[in-house]
Amino acid sequence: MKFLKSLKPLQAQAYPVQSISRILQASIEAAEPFRVVEHNLLFIEDQLQVGSKTFLLYPTSRIVTVAIGKASISMAEAVQAILGDRIEKGIVVCKHLPVGCHSIGKMEVLQGSHPVPDDKSIEAALRIEQLVGGLTAEDIVLLLISGGGSALVCRPADEITLQDMQAVTSALLKSGASINELNAVRKHLDLIKGGGLLKMARPAQVAGLVISDVVNSPLDVIASGPGVPDPSTFAEATSILEKYVSLDDVPATVRERFIKGCLGEIEETLKPDDPMAARVSHTVAASNRVSAEAAMKAAQEEGFDAEIITCEMVGDARLAGEALADKLLNRRVKGRPWVGIAGGETTVKVKGNGLGGRNLEVALGAVRKLSGLADCLLVTQATDGEDGPTDAAGAYVTGETLEKAISLGIEPEAYLDNNDAYRFFEKVGGLIVTGPSGTNVNDLNYIFRF
Amino acid sequence: MKFLKSLKPLQAQAYPVQSISRILQASIEAAEPFRVVEHNLLFIEDQLQVGSKTFLLYPTSRIVTVAIGKASISMAEAVQAILGDRIEKGIVVCKHLPVGCHSIGKMEVLQGSHPVPDDKSIEAALRIEQLVGGLTAEDIVLLLISGGGSALVCRPADEITLQDMQAVTSALLKSGASINELNAVRKHLDLIKGGGLLKMARPAQVAGLVISDVVNSPLDVIASGPGVPDPSTFAEATSILEKYVSLDDVPATVRERFIKGCLGEIEETLKPDDPMAARVSHTVAASNRVSAEAAMKAAQEEGFDAEIITCEMVGDARLAGEALADKLLNRRVKGRPWVGIAGGETTVKVKGNGLGGRNLEVALGAVRKLSGLADCLLVTQATDGEDGPTDAAGAYVTGETLEKAISLGIEPEAYLDNNDAYRFFEKVGGLIVTGPSGTNVNDLNYIFRF
Repeated sequence: MKFLKSLKPLQAQAYPVQSISRILQASIEAAEPFRVVEHNLLFIEDQLQVGSKTFLLYPTSRIVTVAIGKASISMAEAVQAILGDRIEKGIVVCKHLPVGCHSIGKMEVLQGSHPVPDDKSIEAALRIEQLVGGLTAEDIVLLLISGGGSALVCRPADEITLQDMQAVTSALLKSGASINELNAVRKHLDLIKGGGLLKMARPAQVAGLVISDVVNSPLDVIASGPGVPDPSTFAEATSILEKYVSLDDVPATVRERFIKGCLGEIEETLKPDDPMAARVSHTVAASNRVSAEAAMKAAQEEGFDAEIITCEMVGDARLAGEALADKLLNRRVKGRPWVGIAGGETTVKVKGNGLGGRNLEVALGAVRKLSGLADCLLVTQATDGEDGPTDAAGAYVTGETLEKAISLGIEPEAYLDNNDAYRFFEKVGGLIVTGPSGTNVNDLNYIFRF
Repeated sequence: MKFLKSLKPLQAQAYPVQSISRILQASIEAAEPFRVVEHNLLFIEDQLQVGSKTFLLYPTSRIVTVAIGKASISMAEAVQAILGDRIEKGIVVCKHLPVGCHSIGKMEVLQGSHPVPDDKSIEAALRIEQLVGGLTAEDIVLLLISGGGSALVCRPADEITLQDMQAVTSALLKSGASINELNAVRKHLDLIKGGGLLKMARPAQVAGLVISDVVNSPLDVIASGPGVPDPSTFAEATSILEKYVSLDDVPATVRERFIKGCLGEIEETLKPDDPMAARVSHTVAASNRVSAEAAMKAAQEEGFDAEIITCEMVGDARLAGEALADKLLNRRVKGRPWVGIAGGETTVKVKGNGLGGRNLEVALGAVRKLSGLADCLLVTQATDGEDGPTDAAGAYVTGETLEKAISLGIEPEAYLDNNDAYRFFEKVGGLIVTGPSGTNVNDLNYIFRF
């Protein structure tokens, strides 16, 4: 039990550490890539079931695998365990290439680059294009998607360079463009994003299994939606550039592409009414919501009253911590232990040069408000096990945390202002250290009342 | 042949009127609701194929139909012809209730209101909720969607009234909110939009067949996506209201709902990672693109070189007309007749009080530029057969149109400035009158060079 070690100090205060640990563990297990694939991929004689969709396999059907994202290797390994020889070939694009790992069954393992794409990311896209080209309508592309895919696989169009794309992205972000606006532009600069993979794989069927690292799991955003049709147009993308940056201030290659695109001289992204759009189906097999539900179920099995407060907690981390503390303060005790689960992805306003991450900052934001409250506990958790640049997944806070800090002569606010939450909990106690989980479905926060 | 009559005057100038008529006709036939359903719904023993997705029917499976939109009756009639007794029950919500038509097989026919929803639209939503409630995981909801659905079926949440919703919509539109922003707000005020039908139908499977009246067919926009998960949140919807209107200036019922929503006290819209999201599939069976492709195929069969220029022609109608004329001017003759097809949906800047529509205005916008050009023809066509408030679907323009106008003492520009394109073509000749087509996949424009 990965969490037990970090939670152990709570045992002295008679917290049900075993139950709490099991609840946290359940959320991670529900997102574990191998298990996710195992639970959502079924192969019976001449049928392949992916999520709730059934594909009939003809004697001539070939199955090829495209795995993209930080969880690609584990997902591919599960596919190999289930389908084995039925996989004709495949490409697995990962972030960290395990030493000596060049293939999984007949699937080839490649390394992309993340968070900034490089030539390896382009090479990966070209190899995927080769792989899925020449398939027939009876063939199936099994598409395994996890977070990080946007950078790991990249296919700049025509004369566009990675630097050009980076320049446009930075300029839009600085000028306050929304993520939807940014994506509409990027999908018109990159031949694999925004349904590009569907063009490459035409006329094969495409079965997507997704581990979501985006709040609410919009399929077009996760890994930039290589298998998701894109309704946005060159005309819209151009007016977004004009609105925030001006077409004169972007690289000439981008300007030329967009002008040609508006004149209809360049093929558009694949639209929702393209026949290929009806040949693809995606199943979100793991996500913040799925993990929150698994934690809730585990809590109920442990005899807790449990509820999911939200899976959309966004905004400032420190304020989110205060809001969770308020929720806990307002919670009436009912006789049974209670847990509220709040998932999402908060943001940190960087003001200092300390060590921390958003989950640590959420916890620190709650410390003062929870002071003196008996029988309560707040736990924050980056599901990937790595909050910011630290080795902690998150931290726990009780009603005694503030008192202990004061006895050590330190105050939460000073550490918050310096974004130094890691060092606060290092001194006061409360760091949750589990090591990397191998998956990512954003953040989960738990508030307990016993 | 509906188009032949309007095109007849061109026969004197030796245009291949039969071929042209057949090309135009092909685009309408590809969107004809009965045919669309017939081509995309297959029922073989214990399998139901909807688009490219196969549903296995268990002995206990029930099929219920929900048909929403202006083409709902024809679509339901086709379903009845194909599935007959296999349909357990259904609700068909139409705009114009044919006299004496109260049911199609076991499906009940109701009338909604369009373009402004009223109590009938709410009643229709309540009846749909009743219909799909209590289904099991083996049952199938066959969802037939066409344009107009957003108004025809409406389910304001809680204390919200139709007037409240209307007030918010108008305020956002006036302040320059985008259609995506507007929709995020509306989906949080209406319990059937933005995947609401999926909540009602849980845990049944949902098979959607769509006739798209939106450029590029974004499923979440067509009929406001009753079967499409919605990644947007109360928090986002609230910040959109704040950005354009301020929360203080919207009806109190709306304000209260959004505040509660942000506090997590109201259930969110159905998200893409909800298990129901994997139990629904949509097929865009008819759209501007599908019709453009049918026209292209027909043209090729008639011995034409044919190409689709775009299916995303948006922006000012008059300028679109000029742009099409330019395309035609730049077209080199190759020995064979050629047709370029440009689909989309333009907009008219209303400046005058004349009679017209966007397709008539596109045609009028091209008149001067095409003047004197031999062997050319431009035809514009509202696929619903009713351009604006007129009885014409569009108009045709040749190199002689301007000359004829001048001989009658009238000029295109004066009629454009008064938005009076209908009266221009009425006088000069060129109106295409077909009567209502019974479907709508926006506009198609054809430029021919012989």
